[in-house]
Amino acid sequence: MTELGKLYGLGIGPGDPELLTLKAHRILTTVPVIAYPTSENGKSLARAIAADFIGSDQIEIPMYLPFNIQESSQPYYDQAAQQITQHLKIGQDVAVLCEGEPMLYGSFMYIFQRLSGKFSTEVVPGISSIMASTAMLGVPITYRNDVLSVIPATLDEVKLRDRLAVVDAVVIIKLGRHFAKVRKILDELGLLHRALYIERATQTEQRIVNITELEPTEVPYWSLILIPSHFSDQL
Amino acid sequence: MTELGKLYGLGIGPGDPELLTLKAHRILTTVPVIAYPTSENGKSLARAIAADFIGSDQIEIPMYLPFNIQESSQPYYDQAAQQITQHLKIGQDVAVLCEGEPMLYGSFMYIFQRLSGKFSTEVVPGISSIMASTAMLGVPITYRNDVLSVIPATLDEVKLRDRLAVVDAVVIIKLGRHFAKVRKILDELGLLHRALYIERATQTEQRIVNITELEPTEVPYWSLILIPSHFSDQL
Repeated sequence: MTELGKLYGLGIGPGDPELLTLKAHRILTTVPVIAYPTSENGKSLARAIAADFIGSDQIEIPMYLPFNIQESSQPYYDQAAQQITQHLKIGQDVAVLCEGEPMLYGSFMYIFQRLSGKFSTEVVPGISSIMASTAMLGVPITYRNDVLSVIPATLDEVKLRDRLAVVDAVVIIKLGRHFAKVRKILDELGLLHRALYIERATQTEQRIVNITELEPTEVPYWSLILIPSHFSDQL
Repeated sequence: MTELGKLYGLGIGPGDPELLTLKAHRILTTVPVIAYPTSENGKSLARAIAADFIGSDQIEIPMYLPFNIQESSQPYYDQAAQQITQHLKIGQDVAVLCEGEPMLYGSFMYIFQRLSGKFSTEVVPGISSIMASTAMLGVPITYRNDVLSVIPATLDEVKLRDRLAVVDAVVIIKLGRHFAKVRKILDELGLLHRALYIERATQTEQRIVNITELEPTEVPYWSLILIPSHFSDQL
């Protein structure tokens, strides 16, 4: 009987290929099979990050995800899990690439949920864009007794306001078309002057813009607002 | 005139040396001077993590911090900043090692605050123990619209209960002698059965224990409780 392959969930960081860990690099360059999320038009941020480390002898599985956000991704993950299973069954290890950190809003968890009960699985943590953004903006975000909140901008206005009313330090993620709503709430809560904006942190197209000068229509999904702890002024 | 050296805040991750990024590894192995926090008895987790990558020709600056937690660390950071300054002034680059992520409750921010205005400074993000713990415990922590809260156990009981009463997913850090208080609150809020405990994540002494079987007196500072999102059951 063939021994089964091992499944890796590989955190590959926010964009800069040098932010892969030594461990992710070792696994990425030695597994026979690599899978990664890909949009229907064939674009894959994960593959772009890892491109320099992928060899021509490695098998690639693009995991296509629907372009239309109204459409459920679940059948797409079913299909990807099936493809990955074929390789694991014949004893080939498979590394599933995941931008940022796999277990924190990561796409890998949908594969994890489908396959970790059936195959030996290891998750390799990666640098999340949240952490990378504080470094790129050059501001300490929390210290001592500060609470850090990570809040998706996709919440509705009431919930967003409730959550933002009680924060010490906060990172608001998944801005995209929700930017105008978030900006309005921050303004009402008197938080706007403390808010820092960054998009595509550590990617070659990284952009840091004063939040008051930002055109709401030009804000991508891969962007975030960071409000550092009040106390960081008093370090 | 001599060109000034560059200051690096180097995130070196939670414990496993293989969780250094390629970038941190490159800088660590090429700078002439390395500084790291050290307790008064000479122990340094940061140096232990980086040990295999430090060469005999590199200058080391142990930054001593007080053993007694009642004593202010600030004079100690003053002294360390002064030592680091001497090297930067004569054009030597200095890497300050920092466990986990430098900008998230990291010791580096005290050096950053003292020196980043005077010398060219770059922060290299690292894997925080918070992220590594979700991978080691093998549980996705947040997805979609979940809010993630990171809460220090050092908060007083009233504040802790208020914060914990409204969370989706939470990581409670800096447990140590605050464990019994946290456990009591989680029990009262009906959260105890969802709580996972891990200490020294990714270090060789890593330990995962059922939270109900844990002796409060044996909980170290480098430990945390993770409560994953409710929704992760329904992925």
